[in-house]
Amino acid sequence: MTRARRRTESRRASPIDASSAPFRSLRNPWPPLEVISADEVERLHEAAMHILENVGVEFLDAEALDLWARAGADVDRSIQRVRIDRGLLLETVAKAPSSFTLHARNPARSVVIGGDHVVFSPVGGPAYSTNFERGRRPGTLADYEDLIRLTQAFNVLHHGSEGHVEPADLPATTRHLDGMRALMTLTDKTIMGPARGRLVTADAIEMTAMLFGGRDSLRERPGLITIVNVNSPLRYDDWMLGGLITYARAGQAVIVTPFILAGAMGPITIAGAMAQQNAEALAGVALTQLVRPGAPVVYGGFTTDTHMRSGNPSFGSPEGAWAILAGGQLARRYGLPYRTSGGLNSSNLPDAQAAYESLMSLWPSVLAHANFIYHAAGWIESGLTASYEKFILDVEAVAMIESLLNGFAIDDDTLALPYIEQVGPGGHHFDTAHTLARYSTAFYNPLVSSRQAYEAWAESGGLDAAQRAHRRWKELLANYERPPMDPGIRQALDDYVARRARELDGKSLRT
Amino acid sequence: MTRARRRTESRRASPIDASSAPFRSLRNPWPPLEVISADEVERLHEAAMHILENVGVEFLDAEALDLWARAGADVDRSIQRVRIDRGLLLETVAKAPSSFTLHARNPARSVVIGGDHVVFSPVGGPAYSTNFERGRRPGTLADYEDLIRLTQAFNVLHHGSEGHVEPADLPATTRHLDGMRALMTLTDKTIMGPARGRLVTADAIEMTAMLFGGRDSLRERPGLITIVNVNSPLRYDDWMLGGLITYARAGQAVIVTPFILAGAMGPITIAGAMAQQNAEALAGVALTQLVRPGAPVVYGGFTTDTHMRSGNPSFGSPEGAWAILAGGQLARRYGLPYRTSGGLNSSNLPDAQAAYESLMSLWPSVLAHANFIYHAAGWIESGLTASYEKFILDVEAVAMIESLLNGFAIDDDTLALPYIEQVGPGGHHFDTAHTLARYSTAFYNPLVSSRQAYEAWAESGGLDAAQRAHRRWKELLANYERPPMDPGIRQALDDYVARRARELDGKSLRT
Repeated sequence: MTRARRRTESRRASPIDASSAPFRSLRNPWPPLEVISADEVERLHEAAMHILENVGVEFLDAEALDLWARAGADVDRSIQRVRIDRGLLLETVAKAPSSFTLHARNPARSVVIGGDHVVFSPVGGPAYSTNFERGRRPGTLADYEDLIRLTQAFNVLHHGSEGHVEPADLPATTRHLDGMRALMTLTDKTIMGPARGRLVTADAIEMTAMLFGGRDSLRERPGLITIVNVNSPLRYDDWMLGGLITYARAGQAVIVTPFILAGAMGPITIAGAMAQQNAEALAGVALTQLVRPGAPVVYGGFTTDTHMRSGNPSFGSPEGAWAILAGGQLARRYGLPYRTSGGLNSSNLPDAQAAYESLMSLWPSVLAHANFIYHAAGWIESGLTASYEKFILDVEAVAMIESLLNGFAIDDDTLALPYIEQVGPGGHHFDTAHTLARYSTAFYNPLVSSRQAYEAWAESGGLDAAQRAHRRWKELLANYERPPMDPGIRQALDDYVARRARELDGKSLRT
Repeated sequence: MTRARRRTESRRASPIDASSAPFRSLRNPWPPLEVISADEVERLHEAAMHILENVGVEFLDAEALDLWARAGADVDRSIQRVRIDRGLLLETVAKAPSSFTLHARNPARSVVIGGDHVVFSPVGGPAYSTNFERGRRPGTLADYEDLIRLTQAFNVLHHGSEGHVEPADLPATTRHLDGMRALMTLTDKTIMGPARGRLVTADAIEMTAMLFGGRDSLRERPGLITIVNVNSPLRYDDWMLGGLITYARAGQAVIVTPFILAGAMGPITIAGAMAQQNAEALAGVALTQLVRPGAPVVYGGFTTDTHMRSGNPSFGSPEGAWAILAGGQLARRYGLPYRTSGGLNSSNLPDAQAAYESLMSLWPSVLAHANFIYHAAGWIESGLTASYEKFILDVEAVAMIESLLNGFAIDDDTLALPYIEQVGPGGHHFDTAHTLARYSTAFYNPLVSSRQAYEAWAESGGLDAAQRAHRRWKELLANYERPPMDPGIRQALDDYVARRARELDGKSLRT
């Protein structure tokens, strides 16, 4: 293959990799994978209805209880428990849209959440960040900003998450202001906001409204999405409910996500945990529709098993993969967009375990037809830590999946029969006109995966994939370009952050 | 979660992992994933027919040419080229069984190849072997034996491959004898033999017949399977054809596998490479049926892209994944069992790249309903090297896939509604009777994946997955138990090896 090597060296082609691919909306053309039967879907549905009607859900928020009471649910205020009849529940859930557009401040980067659309979003929520340069430490605003820049650098990621890492170097009462400003200014993609209480979320919505021409305009064109986690089993706390209600009322999107470790916050059997997930998710979805019928909402799943000997979660396990797949069947049963997670693992570093576990959640997410695939880049340590190197490795996997979903054309041109005839038995295709015309763009071009033979690889330093990923993020951050923003909007954001930081100084965010 | 931790420490349960799971036949209950339309399947079929009728295939073996001539194909002996009419081809391919049993010397370990059955087989063919103890070196018989022992140690692997690594320390003329004896004595699972010419294969069949009561008995109950690679494009050499004919005549199973790097041995477009794969595979499958109608045969695929800048293969790429998936649709069109590869990658060590690329061939293989998934453990370096550590890491991935395919029951017991009611909102399930009864066996138990929190993991040495895999294979080899074998059979094998080694000394194996 010396001939091929010589030719390419003289050509110096620069094929596109995941750091230079254009932004494209991604569709999933595959049929959803159904791992349980229609009867089994109905059993999980019936079990959820039984739970909602007989056990009920705790809503630790007066306004939420009012909303349920007004809708006709059985509300026991003494224990903040709501039992929900299936008729009421299903009628309310049916008001949710089956898909919606989430708007980006750069309109070319708006995305659809629902149908066969797929949105990949990096990790959100870790307390720590780590990279090979300075090791593992509590997250800072600088780390958060770096991870937003990396999100912006890769068009195969469609979305910037609030809190890629928690900026623990900032005061707890005001860090949401700095965090939102960083997200709004460093990327022009769709963004996620916090779902903590009513004050923090109101700030996030107020700031987002500045990007979209005010609150009335924003209400009709959602520009913010959030994650509302359930305090499983069967409890929504005031913090999350304040968030859910504030977002839904403002017409912004809510991803309702029970977080169930089977054997801890739910039954040890995955079927039982999924029944509980279904009850919890539907209760939250319905609440958004009580606040504002038609409010954009997503059915989220985050169920996996507990490692019973340590009590730690197991991420990227077969149980978690099955929950992702069965969860997709449930979301489709209710006609709701579906959220999963794509880069889950319990490894403490970006090694082989981190990689194979991540693909044990990425593949099921795609096969389940998830519409919003969260944590798709950068997650390690069961979500405690964001890793810069893992971020790059995950982008490679996401980019490969995107390439695979885009598929390969079968037509007269690609079937190449005249060239198969021309080359004949025993020849080679390096030099055909067909090959030469497609030489530099025919194939997926890796971001960090090595294609070097052993000797060349060893001579060039013998770096493993994570070490090469380290080099890539350094280059990408060095070459980062901030997306343009109207100076008036930037000024308004800065003024708002400064004013609210003064107002919130020393206050409690819990209302 | 201290409560859970305390309880397990006092219990010392030993849940089953992949090193102690029982041998089970594996079925794939999922619907096959169809990534191309029925029309596109027909286009690849038509293209293959066009190639076979108009370009033809070279068969560099007089007996193969005779077989084709006798069947009525258009044989040009001056250039050893056979053009095959679609009527003849399809009628001949139709004689192949859609599934067959491959017998193991331990009848409990026989497997079915076809239908919804899945067989996982470790790597075969590398020239080098490597581990963290002694590094990378040309393969030896000792390495080969170690890898057979690891194959025997894991029941999620169903099959032992000829040449997990090539024993280059033995004379080329006789190493097949030592290799086959090692395989036959160190594992009691189904086995693969060499497909090199007529002498080597005759020895393999003669030795296998000793395990199965003689050649007549073996002919009716295949106990040996082999891989016949095509010298793509469109050429079968004498070495492979001698093997194919000898196996088919003896009623032993042949996996016909074109090896096409798109842009090198086939068109640079994956559609064209698949059309060529289809023509090549069908020609080989048909030839087995000309030798012996009904002979067990498998449609194999091994098409991926070339990294055009280096001329090296790309394994675990989107193109390779798509070829695996589309190839399954082709194999099903002809009613043939299907072979793919499950642990492909181009990494030079067992790192994150090795892992994510391997899952980019394992997942598609399962989704394509492959019946025989080769190279599923131990492959690195584009197949040049067998890695002990990668072997263990791959077994973890295979075991997770097996667990996922086995699924999770949904019934009254597993839905656990009484326990969801008992625990109620805000409680936990650690102590329910339901949990306690399932405590130690509920979940997939990892082989090497860590579930330790960061601090505990760092304190216990901070090993990555590959380093932990190193420890596991050491333990497993130390605890290996040779499966029992009738001493008379063992003696007969030894006598045969000794006699044939004398006879073959200094001879050419090429006849």
